[in-house]
Amino acid sequence: MRQSASLLITGGSGFTGRCACQHFQKLGWEVTAVVRNKGVGIQGVKVIACDLTKREAVESIIHNIKPDYILHLAGVNSVHNSWDSPLASIEGNVLSTLYLLETVRRLNNQSRIIIVGSALQYNQGDKPLHPYSVSKTMQVQLAEHWEHLFDMDIVMTKPTNLIGPGPSKGICSLIAEEIASQEQVKGTPSLHINDLSAKRDFLDVRDVVRAYDLIFQHGKKGKLYEIGSGQMRSLGEVVDHYQRLTELPILIEELRSNSSEELPSVNNENIYELGWKPVKSFRSSLVDILQYYRQSRKND
Amino acid sequence: MRQSASLLITGGSGFTGRCACQHFQKLGWEVTAVVRNKGVGIQGVKVIACDLTKREAVESIIHNIKPDYILHLAGVNSVHNSWDSPLASIEGNVLSTLYLLETVRRLNNQSRIIIVGSALQYNQGDKPLHPYSVSKTMQVQLAEHWEHLFDMDIVMTKPTNLIGPGPSKGICSLIAEEIASQEQVKGTPSLHINDLSAKRDFLDVRDVVRAYDLIFQHGKKGKLYEIGSGQMRSLGEVVDHYQRLTELPILIEELRSNSSEELPSVNNENIYELGWKPVKSFRSSLVDILQYYRQSRKND
Repeated sequence: MRQSASLLITGGSGFTGRCACQHFQKLGWEVTAVVRNKGVGIQGVKVIACDLTKREAVESIIHNIKPDYILHLAGVNSVHNSWDSPLASIEGNVLSTLYLLETVRRLNNQSRIIIVGSALQYNQGDKPLHPYSVSKTMQVQLAEHWEHLFDMDIVMTKPTNLIGPGPSKGICSLIAEEIASQEQVKGTPSLHINDLSAKRDFLDVRDVVRAYDLIFQHGKKGKLYEIGSGQMRSLGEVVDHYQRLTELPILIEELRSNSSEELPSVNNENIYELGWKPVKSFRSSLVDILQYYRQSRKND
Repeated sequence: MRQSASLLITGGSGFTGRCACQHFQKLGWEVTAVVRNKGVGIQGVKVIACDLTKREAVESIIHNIKPDYILHLAGVNSVHNSWDSPLASIEGNVLSTLYLLETVRRLNNQSRIIIVGSALQYNQGDKPLHPYSVSKTMQVQLAEHWEHLFDMDIVMTKPTNLIGPGPSKGICSLIAEEIASQEQVKGTPSLHINDLSAKRDFLDVRDVVRAYDLIFQHGKKGKLYEIGSGQMRSLGEVVDHYQRLTELPILIEELRSNSSEELPSVNNENIYELGWKPVKSFRSSLVDILQYYRQSRKND
């Protein structure tokens, strides 16, 4: 069964999506990736371009594929844009999830579905800090309710800040991209960072994909799995690490205009119970990211 | 200002909607009612037929009317149907509200908006009992967040079980309709009731409309107003009251197959602070309901 399991990955061309496609395709799963834009290719994987905020499009995909597993990574992920286009955040995160769950339910499909929340969700009783937080919180609430009301095989996850080689817009990628770019011209990598003392739990994207794999196999329906490295690191630490990986002196200008959003530490308890632990060291992730951008520069 | 205030009432042809149209139109407000089906007329009121789950339709109405006040009564209100069509509940209650709020926000319109929740919302930490509960809870959450994130003039309300003359499908109307129908043929009014001991807070629809009026004038932005009579009455009491209003003996068969949903008592504190209190006695509401159906029968 495992060898021929059919898996639908939404957001297949994103940072986590590409890594997940590669992981499950290597294991012999039949992977179909849903991507937003036409013309995107992913090696070894069937690709369908689709706007998941259109109900008919979602229905057509699920009816055709009838997947055993669904990894729902697609979404609208910018906090900044959510202020201008809150509707796009709600439609992209809540409505797309509703259409997905409803189609699976009405088809009596027994798919195990992984819903991917965010560390930026707000806690019960708190006020959300931005529309993006509203959209991710409602997305996960909806999934929890559908699991409970309709007894569907849905598992919730909340990954932390994901890093690693690939098309990411995270801070670790931005710094590496600047270093690789300046290395070519023997310039000075220089960056503006909001708050060097702000702490984040960084986890390699390959580790989170291994967690999704374990959850598909052994995760408990209705449960929420927080997934992180368990270590909070300041952005200053990130810069220090990179400084040891390049010969150029990195110039950082710190902006303290906005205070950054404080994030709670990750509660890894549930995912540890499945036997998961991160295997990529923080340093090796940064090395791989820098290598990814150095290679991209060479290929340009 | 008050005399020429422009008011948009969505769900204008519904039970509360018709009563609200009449109330505000009599006060000299310029009332526009949005209704679902074409061909519906409401005396003294401009009527627009529109599907509020279509974004463009909502935008067109708000752009044309630019209302000073919006009473958002429209929605999909059946608990029973929400099991078969949860999508319709979410679209009809959450999405329509999102489109309404977003259109007002993007137009920089300063409308005071009343959002109408339900006694069947679930409490934080509890599990919802049906998809309808999910939809009403999310609707009110969304309104609370938009008030807070975008500083909009939104007030939340949670009315209890509304009764009174007019097209209602509530238990008080069902009993009265059966009595009026049997009075014509000298038959025996007979009803199946799930649980005679189940208690509800019944409030006359005319009293709730007076509360909405007060909230438009003096309500506090961002606040939640629960609105009820403050008295819990069993369905057995309702039957006893009706028995005193008809000469026919009422036959009740009690079904105890499903236990009915227990509802908490209403916390009227916030609305009492505005100087509101219910003026219709429970008995006079029942008399008016029975009169409404006796009259309808005569007119048939």
